[in-house]
Parts: sequence; C-alpha cells; structure tokens
Amino acid sequence: MATPEDARRANRSLLLGTLHRDGPLSRADLAKRTGLTRATVSAVVRDLIDESVVEELGIRAAGGVGKPATLVGIDADGRHVLCIDVSEPAEFVGAVVNLDGKVVVRRTYDRKGRTGRAAVTLLKRICRELVHDAEGPLLGVGIASPGIVTTEGVIVTAAHLGWTDVPLALELSTELDLPVHVVNDANAAALAELTFGEPTAPHLICVRVDEGVGVGLVLDGRLFTGSSHAAGEIGHVVVDDGGAVCACGKRGCLETEVSEPLLDRRLEEDGADEAAVLRAAGTHLGTALATVVGALDVTEVVLSGPPTVSTETFRTATTEAIASRTLPVIGARLVVRPSTLGFDDVIVGAAARVLDQELGIR
Amino acid sequence: MATPEDARRANRSLLLGTLHRDGPLSRADLAKRTGLTRATVSAVVRDLIDESVVEELGIRAAGGVGKPATLVGIDADGRHVLCIDVSEPAEFVGAVVNLDGKVVVRRTYDRKGRTGRAAVTLLKRICRELVHDAEGPLLGVGIASPGIVTTEGVIVTAAHLGWTDVPLALELSTELDLPVHVVNDANAAALAELTFGEPTAPHLICVRVDEGVGVGLVLDGRLFTGSSHAAGEIGHVVVDDGGAVCACGKRGCLETEVSEPLLDRRLEEDGADEAAVLRAAGTHLGTALATVVGALDVTEVVLSGPPTVSTETFRTATTEAIASRTLPVIGARLVVRPSTLGFDDVIVGAAARVLDQELGIR
Repeated sequence: MATPEDARRANRSLLLGTLHRDGPLSRADLAKRTGLTRATVSAVVRDLIDESVVEELGIRAAGGVGKPATLVGIDADGRHVLCIDVSEPAEFVGAVVNLDGKVVVRRTYDRKGRTGRAAVTLLKRICRELVHDAEGPLLGVGIASPGIVTTEGVIVTAAHLGWTDVPLALELSTELDLPVHVVNDANAAALAELTFGEPTAPHLICVRVDEGVGVGLVLDGRLFTGSSHAAGEIGHVVVDDGGAVCACGKRGCLETEVSEPLLDRRLEEDGADEAAVLRAAGTHLGTALATVVGALDVTEVVLSGPPTVSTETFRTATTEAIASRTLPVIGARLVVRPSTLGFDDVIVGAAARVLDQELGIR
Repeated sequence: MATPEDARRANRSLLLGTLHRDGPLSRADLAKRTGLTRATVSAVVRDLIDESVVEELGIRAAGGVGKPATLVGIDADGRHVLCIDVSEPAEFVGAVVNLDGKVVVRRTYDRKGRTGRAAVTLLKRICRELVHDAEGPLLGVGIASPGIVTTEGVIVTAAHLGWTDVPLALELSTELDLPVHVVNDANAAALAELTFGEPTAPHLICVRVDEGVGVGLVLDGRLFTGSSHAAGEIGHVVVDDGGAVCACGKRGCLETEVSEPLLDRRLEEDGADEAAVLRAAGTHLGTALATVVGALDVTEVVLSGPPTVSTETFRTATTEAIASRTLPVIGARLVVRPSTLGFDDVIVGAAARVLDQELGIR
C-alpha cells in the first residue's frame, strides 16, 4: 500500500509532468487537470518553488470566464543537470543542461583512446570541471554510456571502453556528493525523444550508431529495457553468416558492417564511393532492424549518431531494407528520421534520465 | 478524471484479479490486500455473487489470531465462456471453458479447406451448437484467429482463411446476442500463459506454429500488440534470401520453412529423416527469433503448436540457433519450453481474453 512519502512523490511527479507537457498553468488549472485538491496543489507547488524547480510567471489576465490567476511553470534554469556522453569513439562530451533540455554549456574532451580506469579518471575530471562551471544549484549528474547498464548505474559491460562491472553511479556520487544516474546511450537518445522531442506514436525504435550500434525502445510510452538491461543490444545480431570476424568471436555481426569508426574508415579509403558505402551500411542496418520492426509493429524509427547516418542515402537504404522485409502494412507506415534533438540527443537524454529519476518527469 | 462507473469497474477488476491469483480469501483479507474499504469490498462481492462470478466457500476456522471468516473465491463454473480456435489447418476447435481456464466441453469440426464466407458460416454453426451445449449462463464468446485482429474484433487480414476486413466480433455478437472478443492465436497462447500458466518472468515470447507462424509478446506483464495490431507477425521475416517463393510474393520468408502443413509434408515424404527435418525447421525458427530475443532481451520462449514443435529435437535446434546469434548473457538465461497449458493453450487463451475484457481479470 502507498505510504505518505509514495503519495508525495506521485503528486510531485504528476504536477511536474503536467507542467512539463502543458505548462505554464495556474494552480486552479493544475488541480482541474490532475484531480488533486487545490490545497495539495498549493502545498506541492510551494515546495517546488522553494527547490527552484518551479517558478511563478506573473498574472494571466482574466478572460471571459475566471479570475486573473498567477501562472506557474518549470523554472528551466532554476536547477541544472551535469551530463557526460562517453559513447563517441574520439571524444567525451560534457554539458550543463537545463530543465527544458537546453544545453547551456558544452565541452568536448579528446578521449585519446582511453579505456578501463583511465577512461573513468577522465570522466571524473570532466565532472569536477563541470561542477566548477555550473552557476545554479545542480539537480544531479547523468552519464550516457554504451553497453549494458543496470538501473543502479553499474556498467555490466561496455566492450569499447573496456569496462566490466564498473559501479559508475556509486563511484561518482561518492566523489561528487550528487545523485548520479547512468543510462545506455541508445536508451538516452530514446529518452530524449520521449521527454523533449516530438514523438508522434506511443512506440519508437531509436537506433544509435557510435563505436558500435544499439537500439533504445520506447513501448507504450515507456523505455523498455528487458530482462537483464540488455534490450536493444542488436550490435551482435548476425547479418552475414560469411561476414568478417567480430570482436565478440562470431562472424558477420551487425557491428562488423555498421559503426562510426568503420564508416569513417570506409569513407576515407582511396576512391571510396560515398553513396555506395552509405547504401551498403544502411541496407545492413535495415536488414537487422526489419525483424525487430516487424515483430514489434513499431513504425517510427529514429536514427542517432554521426552526420553520415542522417544522410538521405543512408536513411533511404535503411528504409528500403526494412520495407522489403516486412509486411506491406508496416512498410506503408514506416518513418525513418533523424532525432528531433540533433546531435546532442544523447546528452539531452542523459538529462532526461535525471529528470525522470529525481523529479518523476517523463 | 474517473467516473463512478470507471471506479466500479476498477474495483471489480482489482478484487477479481486478487481472487484469481490468491483466492479464496475472506472479505477482510480482500480489503487488506487491495486497500479498498470493507464496505466497498462487501458491496462489490455481493454484486459478483449475484452474477455467479464469485461464490462463498464456507467458514475458515479461527487461527491464533483473527475471527472465523467466510471465504469467497471465483465461482469457476458459475459462468462459462464459449471459445473457438480457427487457427489450425485441418479443423476448427470449439470448447466451453470455465472461469478457471478448464476446458469443460471440447469438439472438433473438420474444416474441409473452407475459407472466406464458408469458414465464417462454419464458425457460426459451431457457436450455435456450443450455445446449445452450454449448461450455465455464458460470460461471452472468445475467438482465436490467425492474422491481424483489431481490438474491436475486426480481422484485418488472415491469409490462410481468405479473410480481409471481416468484422467478426460484430457479426457474431449480433447473431448470438453475447459479447464476442476476437484475438490473434499467438496472442491467445501468450494470454493463456499469462492468465492461467506459470510465467516466471514479466516478459514472454510465445511462438505459435499453425498454418503459418506468429509470435505473441508479453512485455512488462501485458500483451504488446504494436502500432497496428501486427506485433508478432514474424511469418514473413526473410530467413533465406535465396529461399522458396512465399504466398506473399517474397522469397525465403520464415513461413516457407516453418508451418504445420509444411512440417507434416516434409515428415511424410518417402525416406524423410525426422530428426533432420525438425532440426532444420527449429534452426530457421531460432534464426528469425534471435533478433527479437536479442533486441527485447526476453529470455523466456514458449512454443505453441502441433506435437512436432514440442519435441526435444525441435526445441534444442531453436535454442541453439538463438543462443549462437545473441549475446552470451542472453544465451545463458534462455529457456525454450512448451506451453504449460498443453495443446489447448489457444482455446484457453481465447477464454482469457474474454475474462480480461468482461471482468478485468488478467
């Protein structure tokens, strides 16, 4: 049964979610939309104003009906979130993000091939520098990492970073004395669409191409992470039985055909035919996705990654490969598009994770 | 906001779900477990007894603590459900199922290759005969059909029955004057596990092999049906680019390698090597499933269909094909097993759909 603390959290989450989607609103509007009493709304809003999460936004003039009322809304810059994206091959990206998902400060740090403890050390340095940069009070820290990440922020495995069973959230929160949340980068990109983007459907497949390739799934409006936090790990789906040997030991994994370093390398080869390279990679990705799209009947596919995967050539090849391998009913509705958040989607998604966990905004 | 009627339905569903899972219980236990008041529990239970859905089951003797109390439980034979499974190639199966998911009456009807209106006519005849057979009051009618079925019971397409846009629920409910619910057969098999089986995890992939092959998905404890009721339609996933031409026009669809008629035909050929036939089919199925299992990180796979798909040879081939194409973390936890409901799983699942829609039991 619900404790008073559960109820308090649920009410906060309900009010903040309503303001996030539909705000600014008056307290009376909030009561009407949420079904909470005026007294509860006023008490919760007062707390949220004290915490710099909500602010009063002046008086709305009286219209035909109703009295003039003070509007309240999310105080976008009342609290900030520190975010670090460690999913890109060449650099770690650090940012300060506000409660509207806007990037306020952004810095990149050359990764210089760091893996293992050296990569954790760099990550900690970035956090300290960003804490120093941040002007307002911080809500928490969000890290987007490739690989399998538990709800508690343990990196079970992130092959490209050489991480196995790294309790990243615990390590960082101890050092920084702030709440730290860690999320898989493809899941972050999906959360960014869900929280700050313009999803047109309750279901969404977000494909993330970075040092490898993975997928974030939004099903029935919620992130779906599977039995062991490994949902969306399609990088080692075999797309070519006779293909190249993968780091994992198998042959022809999707990652041997689609990843950022691989695309870069192929495009830099002498006499490379850019269109042919992008078409081949897009086709392999579409082939692997077709079964997922078909099995889930999810027809909105968002591509996240380097500029190459946002090109029309790549997108068209992906779309055609999916459509040719699924039912016509699916092909007819299929949309393959870039992220509405642009190239900062993963950073913004890490912030979305913190908003979800700390404030119940989703 | 919730209307009194919404609240009434929610309370009924909550109490019936609790009795279905944990009953029999006393009214006081029900109040404690659901958080509803004693007065509400008593009023709802009284209505449910009047409707023959719940019954009193005598007095529980007082233990160390607590007074003697009357237990109430689901009145398994107080209401019956008529169910018809039209997914099998050779015959339609009609049954009367009780509220515990037990098959009370079961009849099979030779389909004689009927399709289109002739198949609908046979279905109506079966319904009339079963209505005549049923002894107690009926809760409703559940139909399990292959193909894409809307929530409102319209068969969008069921290729093997030659059905396109057949408003089956409407036609039958008008004729029978009973609530009629139609559900895809793979989804029925999944619902049977969820409602009457022993699922050990919140996620489940139920593979149904009949005249074609499809999948029912249980994610986070609920049936997932996708954007256009087509989730789980993996029959036309291409598993062999150079394979046989499928009825859909493409080459090498999963259904050209795995279906009940195809397996029967191959096993009946002169000099057929049974183990080799089953291994090949199981491997093709596992290949198509691997991407779904990997992408969803759902490691409980239930096989529904003719006895051939429950053989150890078929299951082992399926398991190995999935494990060899997914991450070790998934292969290590993978369980591929027959339905706990046996060969009546689809019939029982059609009843589960009626219990869900009419009583909120799930």
